[in-house]
Amino acid sequence: MRAHNFGAGPCALPLDVLEEVAAELTDFRGTGMSLIELSHRSKDYEAVHMGTLSTLRRVAAVPDDFDILFIQGGATMQFAMVPINLLAPSQRAGVVVAGSWGKKALSDGSKHGDLVAAWDGVETGYTTMPGADGVDIDPEWRYLHVTTNETIGGIRMVELPETDVSLVADMSSDYLARPIEWDRYDLVYGGVQKNLAPAGMAVVFVRKSVAANPANDVASYLRYEFHANSDSLGNTPPMFTIYVMGKVLERLEERGGIAALEERSAAKAGAVYEVIDGSDGFYRSPVDPAVRSHMNVVFRLPSEDLEAEFVATAADRNLIGLKGHRSVGGCRASLYAALEMESVEVLVTFMNDFRATQ
Amino acid sequence: MRAHNFGAGPCALPLDVLEEVAAELTDFRGTGMSLIELSHRSKDYEAVHMGTLSTLRRVAAVPDDFDILFIQGGATMQFAMVPINLLAPSQRAGVVVAGSWGKKALSDGSKHGDLVAAWDGVETGYTTMPGADGVDIDPEWRYLHVTTNETIGGIRMVELPETDVSLVADMSSDYLARPIEWDRYDLVYGGVQKNLAPAGMAVVFVRKSVAANPANDVASYLRYEFHANSDSLGNTPPMFTIYVMGKVLERLEERGGIAALEERSAAKAGAVYEVIDGSDGFYRSPVDPAVRSHMNVVFRLPSEDLEAEFVATAADRNLIGLKGHRSVGGCRASLYAALEMESVEVLVTFMNDFRATQ
Repeated sequence: MRAHNFGAGPCALPLDVLEEVAAELTDFRGTGMSLIELSHRSKDYEAVHMGTLSTLRRVAAVPDDFDILFIQGGATMQFAMVPINLLAPSQRAGVVVAGSWGKKALSDGSKHGDLVAAWDGVETGYTTMPGADGVDIDPEWRYLHVTTNETIGGIRMVELPETDVSLVADMSSDYLARPIEWDRYDLVYGGVQKNLAPAGMAVVFVRKSVAANPANDVASYLRYEFHANSDSLGNTPPMFTIYVMGKVLERLEERGGIAALEERSAAKAGAVYEVIDGSDGFYRSPVDPAVRSHMNVVFRLPSEDLEAEFVATAADRNLIGLKGHRSVGGCRASLYAALEMESVEVLVTFMNDFRATQ
Repeated sequence: MRAHNFGAGPCALPLDVLEEVAAELTDFRGTGMSLIELSHRSKDYEAVHMGTLSTLRRVAAVPDDFDILFIQGGATMQFAMVPINLLAPSQRAGVVVAGSWGKKALSDGSKHGDLVAAWDGVETGYTTMPGADGVDIDPEWRYLHVTTNETIGGIRMVELPETDVSLVADMSSDYLARPIEWDRYDLVYGGVQKNLAPAGMAVVFVRKSVAANPANDVASYLRYEFHANSDSLGNTPPMFTIYVMGKVLERLEERGGIAALEERSAAKAGAVYEVIDGSDGFYRSPVDPAVRSHMNVVFRLPSEDLEAEFVATAADRNLIGLKGHRSVGGCRASLYAALEMESVEVLVTFMNDFRATQ
């Protein structure tokens, strides 16, 4: 029986994509080889690679002056590459620290450039996000780094900060589940392992003029230019991830693209928040209601014992991945793109049932 | 029909591994999820991950004072990470340049440390390797970097240079097809996409004392220490690649491990070189006979037209990937671990037949 997968990533992928991948696994389209046995220089693989790139450009409405790069190492690798490529030794940039991912972007990135916290949610325990005019921005900064959704805290940036400074965004945990305001950004990045594909890669959208002018002289793999100049075929790419992502993006497009995914995500999250808000305090959301994440619904029960019982009982009903992150405890239902409303309905029923038994 | 895959990487994987992966793809061992949908923090994935690590430690006879790291970005990423982690600003290291991969290790690595060419095969067109006493080594060097097999040139390092300087080796293209003399090395690395697994990762073996003392202060992903301290689970790893590699390593172990693979590789290569040497000059090996690669058999025909005809006719007989690298032309039969002697026999027959028709 198919599990209802509420994991925080890696997480559910569309079942029909998995079935297609399985069917093609030993013989990819009559080649007599698996996709993962093809040369990355072969025509068969190249068609897959360029197909994924063009579907992504269409689905995300990526403007012509942006490159799309496939780079290994996830968002963690980008914490290094962004300042290495964008920040010259004389320059400074700001980072909005709204949770653990923003903290890492700041601490890791600081090894490679002069970064300062532009805003820090520590006083509220990282339960809220700044509003459009809530970030104190130095107009001299090279860029301002934001995390559009904090997976562990369960909060999302509803409005981008108002500023003329170019933005850089880590969108790992709500990638393609909201439109990207391209004119605001020099660079957008994210690991693919939540909404888009199996783990093993980040997608980086970078303004072409930025990629072409690296701020520091570093080895090939660390330069956006290397990936941009080769359509991310400068060395052997993570072919399986790119191939599966192509199929996932096709499904996303068939189902109405980003706008429709944004709506579905809001509806899925809304259904869970409704149970929380209507539970007379049995379930409790610890975050600012104005910035509740549509991807990661974080909630508490009256005691840690009850939380453990909730997670275990849910697993018995095939509802998987509901434990909160070990750093904050509690419960968390992640509702990534491939998790269907049907699974949310099963969760909602279970939450009501569980509360009734207490 | 299964192709005979002579590609230079990515390349053939064991068919029974592919069949197992296909069978498990929509439901991994009763979890109701695909392996690629599991959390990397789940018990099910952890068992796979730690299993691959321990099989690898056993198969490669890795000593206790070496860490095994799974790092994304392939060998190209290691061209940066090796000097970043091993070479302090006051130190220098040497690089044996025996082909295009040694060249890249030198040019990319030079962005992050003081590297010098310790030996360069340019005068012979990169058709030979230095012998044990052929490299001029400064005993003050932090390390000497070697490439044990040059994929494009089709040559292999038969003997390691004699020196007290610690070695670092890029073994991408003969990984686990020869024993690793652990006491000679501080670090051994290689992309997995030739002998071991689908593309998307390098395996790095690094002396624990070296990993624990990075020579430069850089972001997490660029530090061996980060990967060593977390069993390569510091961020989301390339789970699918690690999972498939575990299965490939189990097969390798069942078939006698590295020693047996080394013998099989020598036998496969020997069969092709025998045709070349017995062809009265119709086929011609351009490399020094003493250092012929067991992995990549490079050969020429009397004309480029004949080479093109050879490659095309071979493809009609389901012999795939025989075109030489675009930078050198000619033909190349890569004989990686999962390519069976049966395929080599088909190639040998074809080579004899093709010659007979001319």
